[in-house]
Amino acid sequence: MESALSILEEEMNPARSAPAAPLRDVVIQDEFWGRYTRLVRDKVLPYQWEALNDRVPGAEKSHAVENFRIAAGLSRGEFHGYVFQDSDLAKWLEAVAYRLTTDPDPCLEAVADEVIGIIAQAQQPDGYLNTYYTVAQPGQRWTDERRRHELYCAGHMMEAAVAYFEATGKRALLDVVRRFAEHIETVFGREPGKKHGYPGHQVIELALVKLFHITGEKRYLALAKYFIDERGRQPHFFDSEEHERGEEGHKGYFEGYVYAYTQSHKPVREQDKAVGHAVRAMYLCSGMADVAMETGDSSLADACRTLWHNVTQRQMYVTGGIGAQDYGEDFTFDYDLPNDTLYAETCASIGLVFFAHRMLQMEPKGEYADVMERALYNGVLSGISLDGARFFYVNPLEVWPQACAHRHDHRHVAPERQPWFGCACCPPNLARLIAAIGRYIYSQSETGVWVHLFVGSSLSTTLQGKPLRILQTTTYPREEGSTFTLALEGTADFTLALRIPGWCQQPSLAVNGSPMELEPILKEGYAYVHRLWSSGDRIELGLPMPVERLSAHPEVRADAGRVALQRGPVVYCLEETDHGRNLSGLALPRRSVLVANYESNLLGGTTVIEGEGLRTQDEDWGDHLYSSRESLERTVPLRAVPYALWGNRGPGELLVWVRERR
Amino acid sequence: MESALSILEEEMNPARSAPAAPLRDVVIQDEFWGRYTRLVRDKVLPYQWEALNDRVPGAEKSHAVENFRIAAGLSRGEFHGYVFQDSDLAKWLEAVAYRLTTDPDPCLEAVADEVIGIIAQAQQPDGYLNTYYTVAQPGQRWTDERRRHELYCAGHMMEAAVAYFEATGKRALLDVVRRFAEHIETVFGREPGKKHGYPGHQVIELALVKLFHITGEKRYLALAKYFIDERGRQPHFFDSEEHERGEEGHKGYFEGYVYAYTQSHKPVREQDKAVGHAVRAMYLCSGMADVAMETGDSSLADACRTLWHNVTQRQMYVTGGIGAQDYGEDFTFDYDLPNDTLYAETCASIGLVFFAHRMLQMEPKGEYADVMERALYNGVLSGISLDGARFFYVNPLEVWPQACAHRHDHRHVAPERQPWFGCACCPPNLARLIAAIGRYIYSQSETGVWVHLFVGSSLSTTLQGKPLRILQTTTYPREEGSTFTLALEGTADFTLALRIPGWCQQPSLAVNGSPMELEPILKEGYAYVHRLWSSGDRIELGLPMPVERLSAHPEVRADAGRVALQRGPVVYCLEETDHGRNLSGLALPRRSVLVANYESNLLGGTTVIEGEGLRTQDEDWGDHLYSSRESLERTVPLRAVPYALWGNRGPGELLVWVRERR
Repeated sequence: MESALSILEEEMNPARSAPAAPLRDVVIQDEFWGRYTRLVRDKVLPYQWEALNDRVPGAEKSHAVENFRIAAGLSRGEFHGYVFQDSDLAKWLEAVAYRLTTDPDPCLEAVADEVIGIIAQAQQPDGYLNTYYTVAQPGQRWTDERRRHELYCAGHMMEAAVAYFEATGKRALLDVVRRFAEHIETVFGREPGKKHGYPGHQVIELALVKLFHITGEKRYLALAKYFIDERGRQPHFFDSEEHERGEEGHKGYFEGYVYAYTQSHKPVREQDKAVGHAVRAMYLCSGMADVAMETGDSSLADACRTLWHNVTQRQMYVTGGIGAQDYGEDFTFDYDLPNDTLYAETCASIGLVFFAHRMLQMEPKGEYADVMERALYNGVLSGISLDGARFFYVNPLEVWPQACAHRHDHRHVAPERQPWFGCACCPPNLARLIAAIGRYIYSQSETGVWVHLFVGSSLSTTLQGKPLRILQTTTYPREEGSTFTLALEGTADFTLALRIPGWCQQPSLAVNGSPMELEPILKEGYAYVHRLWSSGDRIELGLPMPVERLSAHPEVRADAGRVALQRGPVVYCLEETDHGRNLSGLALPRRSVLVANYESNLLGGTTVIEGEGLRTQDEDWGDHLYSSRESLERTVPLRAVPYALWGNRGPGELLVWVRERR
Repeated sequence: MESALSILEEEMNPARSAPAAPLRDVVIQDEFWGRYTRLVRDKVLPYQWEALNDRVPGAEKSHAVENFRIAAGLSRGEFHGYVFQDSDLAKWLEAVAYRLTTDPDPCLEAVADEVIGIIAQAQQPDGYLNTYYTVAQPGQRWTDERRRHELYCAGHMMEAAVAYFEATGKRALLDVVRRFAEHIETVFGREPGKKHGYPGHQVIELALVKLFHITGEKRYLALAKYFIDERGRQPHFFDSEEHERGEEGHKGYFEGYVYAYTQSHKPVREQDKAVGHAVRAMYLCSGMADVAMETGDSSLADACRTLWHNVTQRQMYVTGGIGAQDYGEDFTFDYDLPNDTLYAETCASIGLVFFAHRMLQMEPKGEYADVMERALYNGVLSGISLDGARFFYVNPLEVWPQACAHRHDHRHVAPERQPWFGCACCPPNLARLIAAIGRYIYSQSETGVWVHLFVGSSLSTTLQGKPLRILQTTTYPREEGSTFTLALEGTADFTLALRIPGWCQQPSLAVNGSPMELEPILKEGYAYVHRLWSSGDRIELGLPMPVERLSAHPEVRADAGRVALQRGPVVYCLEETDHGRNLSGLALPRRSVLVANYESNLLGGTTVIEGEGLRTQDEDWGDHLYSSRESLERTVPLRAVPYALWGNRGPGELLVWVRERR
């Protein structure tokens, strides 16, 4: 890698303007997120450990731990599961590491250490680590990166190793992945004799940047950059692979489509629309942003901005869901956002959070935080049930359970959360995101601190060589704002940049009780409060949250004539359980007054939106299927609940975009 | 078949109340249908003959005639095409026969005679006739009725033979199919040693009834009845077949679904919802109705009524399209009628016309004729272009061409008519229906004549032993009504039953200039005018056709808040060519005045509907995808054209159900 490294040296011009505050510096104490972090700690991680060990009755078998035991020579048997089964364990370990960072638990750590020992034993003498190829297809390594996910599994294990090292200071798994990374370096690269290749499913790019960060070893960054730069070049790597396997022309289901599906249809800097598998696209974009920031590569940063723009302004659901079709779990085309036949995988919204978080560190703009918040409070959390034991893979915005049961083009849409999946990427992905929610709240530079999310928490850090603590108290998104109290030694001259959400029309700010004019200090979605701060200074940010009726861009055919309700960052929905069947028969008059009410006994305590709606009467239709008579309507109460909480009161219909009566 | 025959004898209680007037008695002279019958005569039949002989440049190869030549020993080569390729030639021959009935052409007849000679030579010594098995799989006959369409091809050849005999009096093809039917009798039946089976794709049932009609041989009716009675019995024939092939459990794509797909999930008399492949279902129902009428089987007639009710009052598009999904080309479930991902195959609407026409003969009720007319003027004719050279297989009610190009769940929806299909069932099916349109206009019994359709035509028949001629003059559906002039010898006491369409709110009737009160003579959709008629009597039927806004039943989710425009029997649509892109941005205010105007230069001369609509403005949206600002609208002219004519002015968007602004 010498040549790539030396190129890198020249390009190095770091551009991470607002690096995230590390997880260990943030303590969460929050009404809203506390529910989810406790759920991950008390339910999800223990449940998933049981699942990974095939001890959940009735759930699909994982075999992930057993695959490692077999590869390690500790057990006998056959590999079971997907070729990417290893990544489920890796994501669980990563989630465990975050949990241990914020909430130490020697028992859990001992369990993790033990399984890390098995992983280390499963590593091959040359550093290779992948239970599928080790157990099921020895000798076939690195022959099918397009489909076989070796680099993907490697990436997830690297992320786990970095997180576990940061949490515990233990090097065992870090050493494993470093040896693996060095093995991968011998296989892939521009140099003659190496494969001029890259993963079919991205994630190793961003993982290698993490590895670079924790170790300071530029070779990892160089390898990440290589994978990104090589992607989509001609002659095409996937064709070469196919040729070497003697399988030309056997692309099967994705015939003619394998390139866009994996975002390798052209070099990444030439890509201007998000295409293909949405999770892969988000992991790629995250890795691109990481490499751009670490190397100061402005063309790569521009490609990130272009793709960000396309995803969030053309191809994103109002819930932060992405991926408009089942086929390929794919992006489709601008403004194609059907509500019922979509994909909107939980993992894709998680990937969007990763991408947003990186862009936010590259350049702290409210548009990134707005999307990050939209995805977090809606399309991510919809993936998990209130009891933490059931999950959505696909997150629809409109559900007619009969269609899911009878229509082949809805067969991928489950009308209820499921206990576990054979392809179990989403549950551990949720766990690792929620367990690390503290990383997404604050950024910090030499000159100050940014607040991106309104989460009850404290940040304990050092600024300009002196300790600083920021205590954020809030009941957001239930109530309208956050209060920040500073603790520091003496005084300090720095900027506190508070996000003013895009959804908020009438924000207010007061420092130590004195209102401040916002206009002069607003820049790209943040209020930059710069002063000489003293301990005990108190900043009150008011974020009024009237109920908003959102319209979609007129090109979004699926939402024409409809509105979605949103209050603060929370998108609402109608459920059959509150309105009876046939939600399409409901309309919301524009003149209806909509009121938000907190209900402490509903869905663990949540704010509902209530108002008057109209329902088409079907009593007098009889057996007519079509009629020229004007159909009658009656006034009915409407009650919308947060989208993320739908489906927690039994199966039934769901509707986000409701017809508006002007 | 002796026992089945004797059972039949006992049951025989014919119940064809209003038999259709035969094609040879009807001469069409009609502004509307003339265009289509000329198209079939001058374009479609010659074009299809070229296609069947693989002489259309750029079109998919048919090979249908060549397959027969090979099977006849007149040519060497391999079978090419689908296992049901023979049926394309049969349907063409049937269409030719109808054309020769109404419009003799010695040249065309010579061509037909020649190909009939080839067919006769392809028949095997034992009467078997199927080029696929004869050429490609000798020895495998009758081993896979579920998938291999031998009885289906037989049925179509029988229909062709009956039609050709009726048209020309020539027996060659009739003799072929009689020998084939007698061979089939030796293979299938209740008797021990025979296969207790029936076709995977129905049509032979109704074809055998035609053969019975023309020959008077009850054994054909008995075989039709057997196929219908056997269907869906346990042990299941398709399982037995599979067992005999040693292929248990290899149902492939349709795993777990083969029974409903072929309407064999239970005995036909127990079926209460239309399921499975829509064309098969309609051919089955037509055969059931035929057998019920010929045998007086009231339980079978009831099953027909139940299925009719389900199809037309729960699962039919406003265009007369049926089959709501691509998978299985299937019915789905009640009120599931998506406009863009549907199937609505041209052949299925044709099948619905066949079913309706039989029910109408069983019991002359307006509901049957209303549906027959709806399908004919809309979902059938939409299948063919104005130049007769391009065809829709799938007939959508909403098209966004980008979605057809990019969404996998729209890949079956062509946004433009295609020149020919590898699976070419629809073009010859259209040809045989249009060529025989004269059969659908009149019914006749001992006591009178029914008029079902308003088509410029004359019926020359004999009633009560005396010649009677009814001349119908009309410009329907351009203008509002029909005039009937009688020619007879002396006077005659009979009933003229004129259909009062369900869509008509204010019909009027005058006999020899004197208005008649309709109420007292109205019964189930027909005005029964009974009197002593004289030659020259003139009946004027007025059918005012204001523009109607139709709503769908509130359970039809896809059409909630929308209306479809209809005038008379014609359903209208909006096209991109008249409104620019994004038809979903249009809304029709309820207060808008809608006016029908005939435009002689548009689409070969047609009536358009015009009025004021609203269009959402998207100029000021910029890059916003969602916004809480109220979106602005501007007034725009709307212009709707007949649905059947859409797509004749270049590709683009289509919309039938337009949002209504109340």
